[in-house]
Amino acid sequence: MQTVRVALGPRSYPIHIGSGLLGRADLIVPALPQRRAAIVTNDTVAALYLAPLAAVLEAAGVACVRIVVPDGEDYKDWATLNTVFDALLGHRCDRQTAIIALGGGVIGDLAGFAAATYQRGVPFIQVPTTLLAQVDSSVGGKTAINHPRGKNMVGAFHQPLAVVADTDTLATLPDRELRAGLAEVIKHGAIRDAGLFGWLEANIERLLARDPDALAHVVKRSVEIKAQVVAVDERESGERALLNFGHTFGHAIEAGLGYGSWLHGEAVAAGMAMAAELSARLGLLDGASVERLRRLLERAGLPVAGPKLDADRYVELMAVDKKARAGRTPFILLERLGAAVIRSDVSPEAVRATLDACTPG
Amino acid sequence: MQTVRVALGPRSYPIHIGSGLLGRADLIVPALPQRRAAIVTNDTVAALYLAPLAAVLEAAGVACVRIVVPDGEDYKDWATLNTVFDALLGHRCDRQTAIIALGGGVIGDLAGFAAATYQRGVPFIQVPTTLLAQVDSSVGGKTAINHPRGKNMVGAFHQPLAVVADTDTLATLPDRELRAGLAEVIKHGAIRDAGLFGWLEANIERLLARDPDALAHVVKRSVEIKAQVVAVDERESGERALLNFGHTFGHAIEAGLGYGSWLHGEAVAAGMAMAAELSARLGLLDGASVERLRRLLERAGLPVAGPKLDADRYVELMAVDKKARAGRTPFILLERLGAAVIRSDVSPEAVRATLDACTPG
Repeated sequence: MQTVRVALGPRSYPIHIGSGLLGRADLIVPALPQRRAAIVTNDTVAALYLAPLAAVLEAAGVACVRIVVPDGEDYKDWATLNTVFDALLGHRCDRQTAIIALGGGVIGDLAGFAAATYQRGVPFIQVPTTLLAQVDSSVGGKTAINHPRGKNMVGAFHQPLAVVADTDTLATLPDRELRAGLAEVIKHGAIRDAGLFGWLEANIERLLARDPDALAHVVKRSVEIKAQVVAVDERESGERALLNFGHTFGHAIEAGLGYGSWLHGEAVAAGMAMAAELSARLGLLDGASVERLRRLLERAGLPVAGPKLDADRYVELMAVDKKARAGRTPFILLERLGAAVIRSDVSPEAVRATLDACTPG
Repeated sequence: MQTVRVALGPRSYPIHIGSGLLGRADLIVPALPQRRAAIVTNDTVAALYLAPLAAVLEAAGVACVRIVVPDGEDYKDWATLNTVFDALLGHRCDRQTAIIALGGGVIGDLAGFAAATYQRGVPFIQVPTTLLAQVDSSVGGKTAINHPRGKNMVGAFHQPLAVVADTDTLATLPDRELRAGLAEVIKHGAIRDAGLFGWLEANIERLLARDPDALAHVVKRSVEIKAQVVAVDERESGERALLNFGHTFGHAIEAGLGYGSWLHGEAVAAGMAMAAELSARLGLLDGASVERLRRLLERAGLPVAGPKLDADRYVELMAVDKKARAGRTPFILLERLGAAVIRSDVSPEAVRATLDACTPG
């Protein structure tokens, strides 16, 4: 087991990464204010890991309420959140009852927002079971639900007390979800760590073959990068926005197609290819680097072009980006592989040319 | 104008109290991160104060989005909140657009929760127009919506950047709402300030006659008391719970009758009479003090008994109190007028005897 710490003063917390961690009640129980927890998961993950996790916690004296919601991004909405509130109230969960998110990014965001707002905030623990959640979404305290007009438009910052990433759970992950998770790993290399990017170029096949050491390496390195960024900019007033590389185009793809058509990581992959193309058009990034990024995404089995939506629709959907200020949508762009910048002065013409080039239909 | 400051480090803010403050753009504009705001109000308040406030802000160069929801506690729910999100997104409000709550406690709680969660949090300003909101709910950062199973069960702590309490708005307040606001003033005296309590006994008729000086006095004194309590316990881990005197029984009354049947202040008034009765039954408070509290509430035109609900229903509704821990509902009780305590060891028999005595039907 390896442990990475997110340094946020009184809200600091550990991220534990390793094999067999779902059996380690000692990683969770000390963080609980009382011996009671509500595990929120989806029906797919419940069939695999809910009983084992609950058994381990109950053996340690923790009473567990089980809350199971349907699987999928299209359930990251108010209606599903309200079923979580109904269950919490029905089981008389109080302010000291911790909510444990057991699942991928959707469950983490949904259960995290429930934890942020139930009775104005209760303790929260992340047990991510997908690669995307382990390398990205379980760390940093962003929680949200989607709104028909925009991804993650309603949410809160609510840091977990601990993150427990059992890499064994990646063995049961569908291939498509594994690849979607790799998109966020590639993102971390592209924006911040040329060494990681080169390592991914050399080892992508090991990752696709689920080599445990290779997976553990990218989880740890991704979490280190994210922990560093979050520690200096918890509320995304500056540097943290760089983690949104690929997400401006990506969120528009997700909202435009309807949540759940593409996985989040797939939309981010196409979004990164589009953002790299835009970077090149603006003279920031050389063509060879654009090609290296596209090639790595393709080798990971990820899309490098967006779906054919009307260009006006893309522009409209990107305008509701949470980073927007005074009507301008800022873009996260690459200066080189390993270095990202945020730019708010991108011309509409460059964006439209990029959409023309990168959404062949 | 008088100004009371809530001392919360980087989240400190001023509460301005006085006549004519709705015309003072200078109290709001400097707090705005950009020259754009969304005013959230209800249809009743909109007819009186929306145009003047928007005109003052627009004259100062602030573009104003207007969002009007129906009036009443039964609209403090997710459906209404979602219409606020729809409007914010429809008007392309970004993370730097401040939300201004113009209205009473319901509007402040609803708009505040929208500000706490829209795009994971936007700037917030309170412009309370009812006595209850000016003396209590606009200060302290509690925001929430109701859930059918419990009052304020979904919410967040989100402090405003400023509170602007124009006491002129109290002139248009219906009598019933004025009396409901006095309930929270009486509460502040009962739990913390015997001097204020005595002043209220001597001056209740001046308040009911809307003497401006008397009203300004109780707004300022209430806000001072609340600011002190919030400054030492922002998240209600201890002393702040004392502000819930009357609210355990009161919330049960509101949820049990259906939100909006009784005004919040009316339910709190009956709840305070019941909590005082319970205090006496437990030997904490003398009968003369119980009688003084009941008499003052009655003189203010407020109820001193709860509606006839089944005792089991009361107990069930009180069990979802946000202060509950490990199945025990704590009660805020009086030791004397001006001094409250929290007790978690109250016997079910004493609670039921109080319900029998104080809910004559």
